[in-house]
Amino acid sequence: MRRGGAGAAAPVVMTGRERTEPRVKGREKPQVGPLRVIGRIRTPFVGARGTPIQTAYARGVEGSVVLDEAVAGALDDLEGFERVWLLYWMDRAVAFRPRVVPYRDTRERGLFATRSPCRPNPIGLSVVRVVRRSGCVLHVADVDILDDTPLLDIKPYVPEFDAHPASRAGWFEACGADRRVADDRFHEPGDEASGKP
Amino acid sequence: MRRGGAGAAAPVVMTGRERTEPRVKGREKPQVGPLRVIGRIRTPFVGARGTPIQTAYARGVEGSVVLDEAVAGALDDLEGFERVWLLYWMDRAVAFRPRVVPYRDTRERGLFATRSPCRPNPIGLSVVRVVRRSGCVLHVADVDILDDTPLLDIKPYVPEFDAHPASRAGWFEACGADRRVADDRFHEPGDEASGKP
Repeated sequence: MRRGGAGAAAPVVMTGRERTEPRVKGREKPQVGPLRVIGRIRTPFVGARGTPIQTAYARGVEGSVVLDEAVAGALDDLEGFERVWLLYWMDRAVAFRPRVVPYRDTRERGLFATRSPCRPNPIGLSVVRVVRRSGCVLHVADVDILDDTPLLDIKPYVPEFDAHPASRAGWFEACGADRRVADDRFHEPGDEASGKP
Repeated sequence: MRRGGAGAAAPVVMTGRERTEPRVKGREKPQVGPLRVIGRIRTPFVGARGTPIQTAYARGVEGSVVLDEAVAGALDDLEGFERVWLLYWMDRAVAFRPRVVPYRDTRERGLFATRSPCRPNPIGLSVVRVVRRSGCVLHVADVDILDDTPLLDIKPYVPEFDAHPASRAGWFEACGADRRVADDRFHEPGDEASGKP
């Protein structure tokens, strides 16, 4: 069972350039986690309803990333970047559903073809603008994240690596809904009990 | 201790739009994980040395994402997308270092201002091209990932959300090294025992 949970029935179609050799024995069991909370993201959004569903719809909304002191030194050199990726745990999202009606459409889609939060691993990904750093705190703008969300990682946004402006975007190119803020379809009920929009 | 590991000494500088109210009691302890391996990424790269350090330097390199059957239905509707984000656990990277000399430079930088794999949570992020789907397998190209890497998530690449081609990129704009493939500075020694380049 080398290939994670794919199981015996999962076809592994190999192309010419893929490796076929056996792997080292120690790698037969996946080594993942545990996750470490390295800070919290502070934002104006206490509940999903009304929260922007993407940073593109959150222009100017300010927030801050308050880092654990043990990792704050790793913020050095970020000031020169206009944007960073925040990776975080969407701790108030509902459980995984393989098919969802996304905010931007009116019909069901495969979950991996959407940015909906009810993922097998609810890891959120948001590109936000860097405003300034102050010690352990990174002030940011364009936030679409719920307040008090646990932070997992910060990566610099590098256009050479990350920007593909002409990339085809499937159903998003003719999506059936112009919604820009969340409702509560993907979150636990209640004003406080919600997750990433 | 509401703000993760930030501790009493971490200043929380609030801007006008941030929430200051207390949160619900149940949220004082971070709720993260556990992570779930949802598949494996198959690539030509067994060791870090020589592996492209970014997908931008891996044009045409083919790989496949073999998904657990329990989540494979969530691949529906991905065919219309030219690219997807893969999120994965860089299980062969060395432990977190707050400052590193990145592949693309000759001087130390704060880890969060780099894409180096020795992160507090070694979650890799790669934008790859979609070639085709075949059942539980998503064939992709432009892979910069080590073979047999545990998959955590797939998200569609949406230019409206993800493409910021003019975003300032700090030290990358005048970086001191033109390196495009990895060496073994961020990985366990040995040909097999390595992680994301």
